[in-house]
Amino acid sequence: MKIRIPATSANLGPGFDCLGLAIGLYNEVIIKPSSYQSISVKGEGEDNVKLKKNNIFISIFNEIYQELVGKKECFRFEFYNNIPFSRGLGSSSAVIVGAIASAYEMAGVKASKETILNKALIYETHPDNIAPAVYGGFTSSVVDGGKVKTLKKELPHSIQAVMVIPDRPMSTAHSRTLLPKNYLMKHVVYNLSHASMLSAAFFSENWDFLKVASKDCMHEYRRMKQMKELFDVRDVAFGHGALMSTLSGSGSSFFNVVRTEEAQKLATALRNHFEMFRVEVFDFDNDGFSIIKS
Amino acid sequence: MKIRIPATSANLGPGFDCLGLAIGLYNEVIIKPSSYQSISVKGEGEDNVKLKKNNIFISIFNEIYQELVGKKECFRFEFYNNIPFSRGLGSSSAVIVGAIASAYEMAGVKASKETILNKALIYETHPDNIAPAVYGGFTSSVVDGGKVKTLKKELPHSIQAVMVIPDRPMSTAHSRTLLPKNYLMKHVVYNLSHASMLSAAFFSENWDFLKVASKDCMHEYRRMKQMKELFDVRDVAFGHGALMSTLSGSGSSFFNVVRTEEAQKLATALRNHFEMFRVEVFDFDNDGFSIIKS
Repeated sequence: MKIRIPATSANLGPGFDCLGLAIGLYNEVIIKPSSYQSISVKGEGEDNVKLKKNNIFISIFNEIYQELVGKKECFRFEFYNNIPFSRGLGSSSAVIVGAIASAYEMAGVKASKETILNKALIYETHPDNIAPAVYGGFTSSVVDGGKVKTLKKELPHSIQAVMVIPDRPMSTAHSRTLLPKNYLMKHVVYNLSHASMLSAAFFSENWDFLKVASKDCMHEYRRMKQMKELFDVRDVAFGHGALMSTLSGSGSSFFNVVRTEEAQKLATALRNHFEMFRVEVFDFDNDGFSIIKS
Repeated sequence: MKIRIPATSANLGPGFDCLGLAIGLYNEVIIKPSSYQSISVKGEGEDNVKLKKNNIFISIFNEIYQELVGKKECFRFEFYNNIPFSRGLGSSSAVIVGAIASAYEMAGVKASKETILNKALIYETHPDNIAPAVYGGFTSSVVDGGKVKTLKKELPHSIQAVMVIPDRPMSTAHSRTLLPKNYLMKHVVYNLSHASMLSAAFFSENWDFLKVASKDCMHEYRRMKQMKELFDVRDVAFGHGALMSTLSGSGSSFFNVVRTEEAQKLATALRNHFEMFRVEVFDFDNDGFSIIKS
């Protein structure tokens, strides 16, 4: 079997730990029964020996598979990694979701996307990346009584994502330590109101509201200070047609929404200004993970 | 001229100071040129002498009128008040919005609804009641650079509001002093995620998500403790078809959404359980204030 899992962008400004969307950039994994376990890695991480010795995808896959079938079995895993690591593009969520969904598939146990998502919550406690990795589209999620509930909106072809992917990572764990433990009421209301409107803007396709609605006062400024060029990325993006421009997850990538007819112009402007960063245009993904049987 | 302004319900659970909607319960005011100022009050407040001596509607009307025309003039004001005072039904917002919009009308100055809304923000610093009083429907608002931006969703006839209006008020000012100045990150994320989903649920008419999405951890519990019957109101409402059941504004009323075919059943159940409270079924309002020229 082959599984394909999209990259994701979360937070999206004010939607801390709850809003996310799926991007048409995919990791693929081919899994085949085998008499012994083997692994090959192409693309991101192909030179990283640790990825072969201590592979999180395989650990989670084995754990779930054993839980479902009652015994361990051997497989060959071929990874085709396109989602950069530690850049706020949901590479960990893609690994978790991909491992769980493929374990169910290989075990021959039918599972709803909701089941896969709730299993994924065991490995990643915030639903903002795993929800769009499972469902695709723009997702608004809550964790209620230990279960994830997600409302999804399919995104039209009339908008695209322009990702700015820096040459160096920002650690999510360190990034989180930069944040305060408490927030003042006025800051809470700021993010509450903006996140609610961002959700409304995506669901109603009112793209002209994205710019205002995507403002945040909880985390972006503190995180962006670690890589000050990102402030310029946002300025250039807004100067060249971006409808919204936010840190992707906890960084270091920057996520821009743009009308499709303006995507190349925006990408070119960003490439010209930031030669050391990778700039790419992607469609949005509306499917989430998908399994291609062989 | 005659102006009609709807009642409003705000907060709606997690949407503190930003989410609101308009209810088909109206105050009406007739304003006529006159050689001296006079006032009559029918309905809510008709026995309250203070309302005639120190009337906020008239103060704001005169202030705006004078600003627009450059001089003071006299009018006869006839108030037909249907929105109860101090019950979390937006009676203050109705007064503010009604006074501003009618002053523009009487001054003969054309103004967009956006202009009226931004004037209203001077008198009420939170947009959650004034926005639906101006536009109608379900509204998601932010205050950005001193200006209100609002995204509106018209509500269909397939749902209605069942209001439970207690026999006594809860003071908004006192109610606000019960709230903490700081919130822990986990509580912020709780409300952020729920308010975003509530907005998504209204915009996408996914009524089955309202119950989960309308959960709050910032203010309702602290406020409801002042009138403990309200916890029972919510239990009874959820037991009889309510899709969501939240404190209306800062109370004391309780706001329930229900499918139209279940509205009378829910109202009857609530009346049977809470004989001392007024229980009424309303359509939603999708117009906001409206001016009827004479």
